[in-house]
Amino acid sequence: MPSEFELIARHFAGPTPGAVLGPGDDCALLQPSPGMELAVTTDMLVAGVHFLPDTDPEGLGWKTLAVNLSDLAAMGAKPRWVLLAGSLPEADEAWLAAFAKGFFTLARASQVDVVGGDTTRGPLNLCVTALGEVAPGQALRRDGAKAGDDLWVSGQPGLAALGLAQLQGKIELPEALVQRCLTALQRPRPRIALGLALVQRQLASAAIDISDGLLADVGHIAERSGVELRLNVGQLPLLPRGVDPLLAQRCQLAGGDDYELAFTAPAEKRMALAALAADLELPLWRIGYAAEGAGVSLYDGDGAPLPPEFMDQFKGYDHFRAT
Amino acid sequence: MPSEFELIARHFAGPTPGAVLGPGDDCALLQPSPGMELAVTTDMLVAGVHFLPDTDPEGLGWKTLAVNLSDLAAMGAKPRWVLLAGSLPEADEAWLAAFAKGFFTLARASQVDVVGGDTTRGPLNLCVTALGEVAPGQALRRDGAKAGDDLWVSGQPGLAALGLAQLQGKIELPEALVQRCLTALQRPRPRIALGLALVQRQLASAAIDISDGLLADVGHIAERSGVELRLNVGQLPLLPRGVDPLLAQRCQLAGGDDYELAFTAPAEKRMALAALAADLELPLWRIGYAAEGAGVSLYDGDGAPLPPEFMDQFKGYDHFRAT
Repeated sequence: MPSEFELIARHFAGPTPGAVLGPGDDCALLQPSPGMELAVTTDMLVAGVHFLPDTDPEGLGWKTLAVNLSDLAAMGAKPRWVLLAGSLPEADEAWLAAFAKGFFTLARASQVDVVGGDTTRGPLNLCVTALGEVAPGQALRRDGAKAGDDLWVSGQPGLAALGLAQLQGKIELPEALVQRCLTALQRPRPRIALGLALVQRQLASAAIDISDGLLADVGHIAERSGVELRLNVGQLPLLPRGVDPLLAQRCQLAGGDDYELAFTAPAEKRMALAALAADLELPLWRIGYAAEGAGVSLYDGDGAPLPPEFMDQFKGYDHFRAT
Repeated sequence: MPSEFELIARHFAGPTPGAVLGPGDDCALLQPSPGMELAVTTDMLVAGVHFLPDTDPEGLGWKTLAVNLSDLAAMGAKPRWVLLAGSLPEADEAWLAAFAKGFFTLARASQVDVVGGDTTRGPLNLCVTALGEVAPGQALRRDGAKAGDDLWVSGQPGLAALGLAQLQGKIELPEALVQRCLTALQRPRPRIALGLALVQRQLASAAIDISDGLLADVGHIAERSGVELRLNVGQLPLLPRGVDPLLAQRCQLAGGDDYELAFTAPAEKRMALAALAADLELPLWRIGYAAEGAGVSLYDGDGAPLPPEFMDQFKGYDHFRAT
């Protein structure tokens, strides 16, 4: 059986042109761009909690990196470097090679250097730390939304949750939707270009990725910004056809594992955001607005408030609540 | 049961004066010091592999941070920020509070801000990423040793392994040694001041921490530097009295979990290193030297080479070899 050091060297030592020193020493050495702020995030993925233990390792490698790049995207930071720590029940070469392939494919596509890591034996657990850069004071924080701002979301939230339900055999999606939902679940594309453009064009006042579900995550913006966010369910993207509407709406509002961005923006940015959506070929949906108050409330297509009981059926994902 | 978000907020949201933005957003935001290089490391600790599952959580919190700060120390970097990701089998408040106490005690003592993290359910697993700063080109890498350099080690390697053997009931240490060995195992002090001084006084050509055991780790310096390291076992610190000499020597040469530094330095730095040892009140032992060649070889107190079989009994810790 190859040693830990050989395994790491074989699969995780790609070129690191953007680093002073890559893997193989006590630390990686990086030279931050002068004057830029550093955005740093860490995420841990556990078998049986965040993914099924028999998940295709190549897709898992991709996704493990994607969830971290999504956090950088949500700050409007440009991804630069990542570190990967993992515990594995056994040194399974084929598994590792496939995982590394998925991980490095997204890393290369995102111009991110894999600069370090750690490998150990243990129950399957993957922990990535991602570092990016953003101009000082320009990061898209959660606490910048102001009453009167519009609330936006990108893409088609809910597809990942539908994909998971399909995989678990709980639903049978129409043929035309299967691949789209599975891709959303297994190969999510972090919205890096959207985050960078929101910063560069100074369009957004606050942002978050909706990995814990749209309602739960916009709730974080509301809380940190001290505003109420009023979400009009009639302005959400059309639900996919051929899916039970209630289920589809639940996935859209509360399904986890979507790596779209929700953000607030002043009303005068609507034209600029429409132009951005066209430039990125990515739909941006204006789904509500911020008001004086607190929390998230839901309105129907006619602008009438939905009762709190409607909201109660949608709960975001909370790892310790789930019991 | 409190939610994940409440748990994190309650125990892991200390002040972060050294960060632009601490925990609670998609990323932390940090402002690196102008011109400095960033040293980054990540380490994963798994219950049953790196520590006993019933380990005192306060000591575990301390050690989880210490092993990462030790990697920064081994580069000569000044610790600035850390992120902590953890999976826990249950949301045990008392355990978390004690773990956080140990973690934050060392963080404060090291002037490190805990700027972010992630908490999830799963088998007990702790992953820390630590970031530090070092002047460009000054970091203590593993690849700088030159033939003719001396080989040094700090402190008293082997105590942690003796402490573990005691805890496991394999040996009975003399009363006077018990606390010292358990402290080395449970509350290791990363050699931050030593690493910083080696950089500031420009004394070392290469360095590493000896968390995998002295022999295994100096082997990494030999390999990366392209030199042979000749270690004279007669120049190692005196073995603790009252311990089986063979066991003590094995712990000293191959015991893991010591967070001392091994480093190489030009011979003309001997006086300066003696002065440094006095300044830091930390013993520094000159235990050998680098020569043209490869690998690590052992010599007895008279300078005669020890046979390879002597070496074979000491194997460094390798998580995937251990099976």
